[in-house]
Amino acid sequence: MNAFAGGAFSAVPSRDSALDYIAQNSFERPTLVIDSARVGEQYDALSAGLADAHIHYAVKANPAPEIIRLLVQRGSGFDAASRAEIELCLAQGARPEKISFGNTVKKPSDIAFAWAMGVRLFAADAAAELEKIAAHAPGAQVYLRVLVESQLADWPLSRKFGCAPSMLPELLDMSVALGLRPVGLSFHVGSQTRESAFWAPVLDQMVQLWDRARASGHDLTLLNIGGGFPAFYDQPVEAPRAYAAGVMAQVRARFSGIDVMAEPGRGMVAEAGHIAAEVLLVSRKSDDDLHRWVYLDIGKFSGLAETMDEAIRYRFDTAHDGGDTGPCILAGPSCDSADVLYEKRPVNLPLNLRAGDRIVIRNCGAYTTTYASVGFNGFPPLDVIVL
Amino acid sequence: MNAFAGGAFSAVPSRDSALDYIAQNSFERPTLVIDSARVGEQYDALSAGLADAHIHYAVKANPAPEIIRLLVQRGSGFDAASRAEIELCLAQGARPEKISFGNTVKKPSDIAFAWAMGVRLFAADAAAELEKIAAHAPGAQVYLRVLVESQLADWPLSRKFGCAPSMLPELLDMSVALGLRPVGLSFHVGSQTRESAFWAPVLDQMVQLWDRARASGHDLTLLNIGGGFPAFYDQPVEAPRAYAAGVMAQVRARFSGIDVMAEPGRGMVAEAGHIAAEVLLVSRKSDDDLHRWVYLDIGKFSGLAETMDEAIRYRFDTAHDGGDTGPCILAGPSCDSADVLYEKRPVNLPLNLRAGDRIVIRNCGAYTTTYASVGFNGFPPLDVIVL
Repeated sequence: MNAFAGGAFSAVPSRDSALDYIAQNSFERPTLVIDSARVGEQYDALSAGLADAHIHYAVKANPAPEIIRLLVQRGSGFDAASRAEIELCLAQGARPEKISFGNTVKKPSDIAFAWAMGVRLFAADAAAELEKIAAHAPGAQVYLRVLVESQLADWPLSRKFGCAPSMLPELLDMSVALGLRPVGLSFHVGSQTRESAFWAPVLDQMVQLWDRARASGHDLTLLNIGGGFPAFYDQPVEAPRAYAAGVMAQVRARFSGIDVMAEPGRGMVAEAGHIAAEVLLVSRKSDDDLHRWVYLDIGKFSGLAETMDEAIRYRFDTAHDGGDTGPCILAGPSCDSADVLYEKRPVNLPLNLRAGDRIVIRNCGAYTTTYASVGFNGFPPLDVIVL
Repeated sequence: MNAFAGGAFSAVPSRDSALDYIAQNSFERPTLVIDSARVGEQYDALSAGLADAHIHYAVKANPAPEIIRLLVQRGSGFDAASRAEIELCLAQGARPEKISFGNTVKKPSDIAFAWAMGVRLFAADAAAELEKIAAHAPGAQVYLRVLVESQLADWPLSRKFGCAPSMLPELLDMSVALGLRPVGLSFHVGSQTRESAFWAPVLDQMVQLWDRARASGHDLTLLNIGGGFPAFYDQPVEAPRAYAAGVMAQVRARFSGIDVMAEPGRGMVAEAGHIAAEVLLVSRKSDDDLHRWVYLDIGKFSGLAETMDEAIRYRFDTAHDGGDTGPCILAGPSCDSADVLYEKRPVNLPLNLRAGDRIVIRNCGAYTTTYASVGFNGFPPLDVIVL
């Protein structure tokens, strides 16, 4: 995984306002501090790399109203997963034609709401979903999400979304028969795809499906390349502009004269925010234990859900950094034995870390705040401060 | 797993008010309907079986204020995990001496709050936790949680809580040195321990530790047997009174003249509530797929977190029950590929199940509402109606 196409990597920004704010303040409870200026810079970098492709920010990554408003002002579109996300975007000034309803599993009443508000573009991957859209958004534009093969290999769980390529012809025909306008196709290359070169095999498959659909008479004009734009956690990633340009070069080499839309979420906001948390306890289970146990005031049920299966590996800053470190099992504060963040691969933390110490969890701007539970064990959800 | 000690199994109650209410009403969003009378009956059954042991209801299982109030009126005590849970119990009329602060990982300010409110009994399993308690609740009673061996074998994740038996002597001595009153020991036999006979090996270990602690001069008087009281999901369980009596017979055979406390949570409330949900989509990924995919309006991030690793297997009722069924992969409504409830072991559901159909998820009174996220993908948290 050391060969990078672009040669330009995410660098630690020279100045990080969210880190500065955390250093200068104290917090009653775990708090995500997110720097909206950094989101704006990331939008500009992705936008430059994506060139004439349309950005539809994946609202679910972080629906803070300030972020939505900033992106509206930048000219971004929005990928919404529900009625509430559409309402949010509209309330922050987004025009309905810039909002796509990208969830392939929609409530009928949410489809009707979106249509009434002026949303015109909907996702689907199944016959019954097309029927719902036809009933509640008659004549709408739809794009069909396809389950591409490399996903089946690398990301077994992503079978949740998309139809098999073999079903595409009948779903396209059915869209037309239902009075819908099938304008394009979508796919998802997989979350946190760290190198733009990894997109090639998926794009190879998509262009075949695209050509076949057009050959059978469907006038497709829109390719939705979805998300997958990475953020820097524990592994290097290409810088956003180079990454986006690398993806688009591969798209344009295969598709010409079509509209392209992209749905960055994590890649837009993750690096703009950090969580200020506190160490509640450092202990050993027995005198001969090799690992310490470190318990934080934030866990899997209060914002760090993406540590599930130890998938996302966050980095941690403490005031003791630079001194000797040792391996720790990291756990959350709840009375739930599943609320353990990293155990299979322990985290190295300073030997003199103590209860009461501040710990900063880096690059947490995506997929943290809304995952937090309403109050499991009586702990409040993750607080958010947008700078 | 077919040999049961008690011979008496949980029966489907002749009348289920929560089911009746669901049948007679419609709901805008996924809703847990919980029958408080059923909670009261369960309390009475557990209380009869536990005899002179003190019940401290594990508030985290379901902190609905109506349930807390009902249990206060029944004379129950409460096991709280945080300041917010203590405040809740006090607000519903619990006396502070009936509340124990059972989380072994506490915020110093929460310890101070509990102490100021009159809470006198605290859990600990580590030196640094004892230091925090001594600093913020000087002279408090503590019980030490022990990691017992059969847990290590059967429930690897439960290593999160408890000290190794080898550390117990130094933690007891340290408690005294810090001016605390070490009054007893606690353990957890493991969540959803379906037969009372399964408690024997753990109790065998505990009595040895107990006798050793007393022999070394610690005047222990309180054994906290924790939770583990089961609910009926897809496997038969002993009826609550017989189960509790079976556990207590084994406790009394080993310990005499001591106070016993128990912390049922799931076993108190799970069977009293059901979730009214809706089918959003039924689809196949390809024409030759063996399984259908069934998408609900509730998922892993909106109340059904305990489907993680397919651990808890809920039962489902639909209006089509009785007809032909086939295997389904069951998933939630969010745009998260991890939001799949049952895939390794698919669920059999009626062949004529359709989008828009009501689906009732049985015995969901425990560990659902508070696990729900604040609004992942813009979906609201699980609603609750207490009858």
